[in-house]
Amino acid sequence: MMSNPFKYSGDRFRVTYEIRGDRAQAEARAQAICVEQTIEFPADLVRSEVIAEHVIGKVHDISEAADGAFEAHISYAVEVTGFELVQFLNVLFGNSSLKPGIKVKSIALPEVFLEKFRGPRYGKSGIRELLGVQHGPLLCAALKPMGRSAAELAQLASAYTQGGVDFIKEDHGLADQPFSTFEERVPVIAEAVTTVNANYGTNAVYLPNTPGPVTEVLDRAHFAKEAGAGGLLVSPGLLGFDIMRILADEDDLALPIMCHPALLGSFTVGKDHGISHGLIHGVIPRLAGADMVIFAVYGGRFSCSKQECEEIIRGCEREMGNIRSAFPTPGGGMRLDRVEEMADFFNGEAVFLIGGNLQRGKSPAANSSRFREIIDRFRN
Amino acid sequence: MMSNPFKYSGDRFRVTYEIRGDRAQAEARAQAICVEQTIEFPADLVRSEVIAEHVIGKVHDISEAADGAFEAHISYAVEVTGFELVQFLNVLFGNSSLKPGIKVKSIALPEVFLEKFRGPRYGKSGIRELLGVQHGPLLCAALKPMGRSAAELAQLASAYTQGGVDFIKEDHGLADQPFSTFEERVPVIAEAVTTVNANYGTNAVYLPNTPGPVTEVLDRAHFAKEAGAGGLLVSPGLLGFDIMRILADEDDLALPIMCHPALLGSFTVGKDHGISHGLIHGVIPRLAGADMVIFAVYGGRFSCSKQECEEIIRGCEREMGNIRSAFPTPGGGMRLDRVEEMADFFNGEAVFLIGGNLQRGKSPAANSSRFREIIDRFRN
Repeated sequence: MMSNPFKYSGDRFRVTYEIRGDRAQAEARAQAICVEQTIEFPADLVRSEVIAEHVIGKVHDISEAADGAFEAHISYAVEVTGFELVQFLNVLFGNSSLKPGIKVKSIALPEVFLEKFRGPRYGKSGIRELLGVQHGPLLCAALKPMGRSAAELAQLASAYTQGGVDFIKEDHGLADQPFSTFEERVPVIAEAVTTVNANYGTNAVYLPNTPGPVTEVLDRAHFAKEAGAGGLLVSPGLLGFDIMRILADEDDLALPIMCHPALLGSFTVGKDHGISHGLIHGVIPRLAGADMVIFAVYGGRFSCSKQECEEIIRGCEREMGNIRSAFPTPGGGMRLDRVEEMADFFNGEAVFLIGGNLQRGKSPAANSSRFREIIDRFRN
Repeated sequence: MMSNPFKYSGDRFRVTYEIRGDRAQAEARAQAICVEQTIEFPADLVRSEVIAEHVIGKVHDISEAADGAFEAHISYAVEVTGFELVQFLNVLFGNSSLKPGIKVKSIALPEVFLEKFRGPRYGKSGIRELLGVQHGPLLCAALKPMGRSAAELAQLASAYTQGGVDFIKEDHGLADQPFSTFEERVPVIAEAVTTVNANYGTNAVYLPNTPGPVTEVLDRAHFAKEAGAGGLLVSPGLLGFDIMRILADEDDLALPIMCHPALLGSFTVGKDHGISHGLIHGVIPRLAGADMVIFAVYGGRFSCSKQECEEIIRGCEREMGNIRSAFPTPGGGMRLDRVEEMADFFNGEAVFLIGGNLQRGKSPAANSSRFREIIDRFRN
């Protein structure tokens, strides 16, 4: 076997996997992960010392965790990722996702890797600056339901803007349907928001959804910006994480990115396999440029627990070298009567997303005003 | 509320969800799915008859299934998908993926929807024609391990070609790493395969992996084709399903597509949530243009059961209007000594993918010849 002339730096990143089974099984499975996530090749057939030394993952230690599981700390050479998001996700969990009883719990990424990623262009502090809100929670309303015409959605956007919300995002299901196409809808809604902002001195930012096809997403984002949109809603579970990164990195756009969790649930719903809440709704979206990350808040209509929400907060905020923090954006069951509890739980450091409930009872404008009024108590 | 001038066709597609819980819970959860996958909006607040009638999903019936679960048959208006793959996946399972106890079991798609998709350009019959193999299994070898140089991989590709394999795919982990970049590797390997084909009268097809960034995938595919590659390996779990569809649809490429399951495991590993094997490794890749679909064969190093493999075969082969069938491509533990059993199980209608085991014992060329020799018995 020829030797490989490439020189490895020795820099590695670490991944903690939670593995089911007894200690002997956990040890065998950890060794299997090292191989599966890199060379996918019988370790006994490797003739190259360079590959054995640098390319195969390395188990550093295995410790007993809760529930009779084990935590394996494994490292990989930064070079196996090609310093590229798609291959990084592959090394993290590509083939091992097909095996039961393995959960990716956490990752530690060295500077030499992180510096290849821009991460969130704005991050929490940039978003605060953009909105002129120095502290306390931010407000996000949602344009829905699917099936409404562009004019109806624009009317709703006007009402939310008058009510004083900070962000108005589209439902991620507003794609490019015949009842309200992307090109028809976005300019009308953007204009409605811009007009109210000008007339009422409000500062609402409109974030249209970026639907497929994936090869049209960049053009659509530029179209949206030219039409007056102030940010983008992106669903990496549907479109892939890499296109979110590309949108975030595009200097000619420079738009804040809000990440939606559609189709990402299968990673987190299983207790003993998948990827942790803190990674899938925190660290990974940040690496892929999300300034705000939507997730299902505890006590809502989804399944998130308080502890899982805390993991997400940590994933959004933890130190990651040059990578800015992102705003946790709890939704999926936010209500006006929960705002105080939420402001407390998130310590004011969140974007509160209220959807259908802003259209209940009084007018959307009145509800938004009430939403804003409650929030203002936490902004001072 | 203004009425929506758009007219719905009345055409709907059906999805069967397996839902955990007792009957009352299953009924409530089925109604929640109808709303969650479309309007994401309190049904009692919907004022538009058109939205209530056409846009919200409809429960057709709920029947008791195995293991105390229930099967809910739900339909959606074709228009809510915008006739577009990304939004179709969203309607299928976007938000509901975040809820435990829900599994997408099967789908029935009307012609009016299917005809918007090309599906596999070759399909099983086209692949057979391309390879000149009228019946019996096809053979695929894999270029690995990661860490080898372009020259080393080309040498291996030559050996496989001499041995008479039909396809030579790259490991999906061969991305664009410094030890073997995409642009350096692909032309060298393609030339090696072409040269042996010319000298030995073999007919091997080289399928390089298409790594990210996602916006460079199309250019890379064209580069690969110009360099002499005869097909592409694509990982929709890493890159998104839509880019696979775009590659398959590209007339200037017209390359066979082999789908890799990396990072798709979280959909199937949980017994009581996610998406069924038949959909994620059959129907959905076909809709997205895959001619061959790799999955983990039963009895290998992954977790697939015989029954799950049968579901995948059905998903790859079932009638889907204008959408061609795809070749099941079992891997992840294929061995020479299992080929006979596999030929029987798959009734000769599969591409057998053998990875590292072709580099065990004798030379890769000798192993490939032996692989081919065994297979030839099933080709006559």
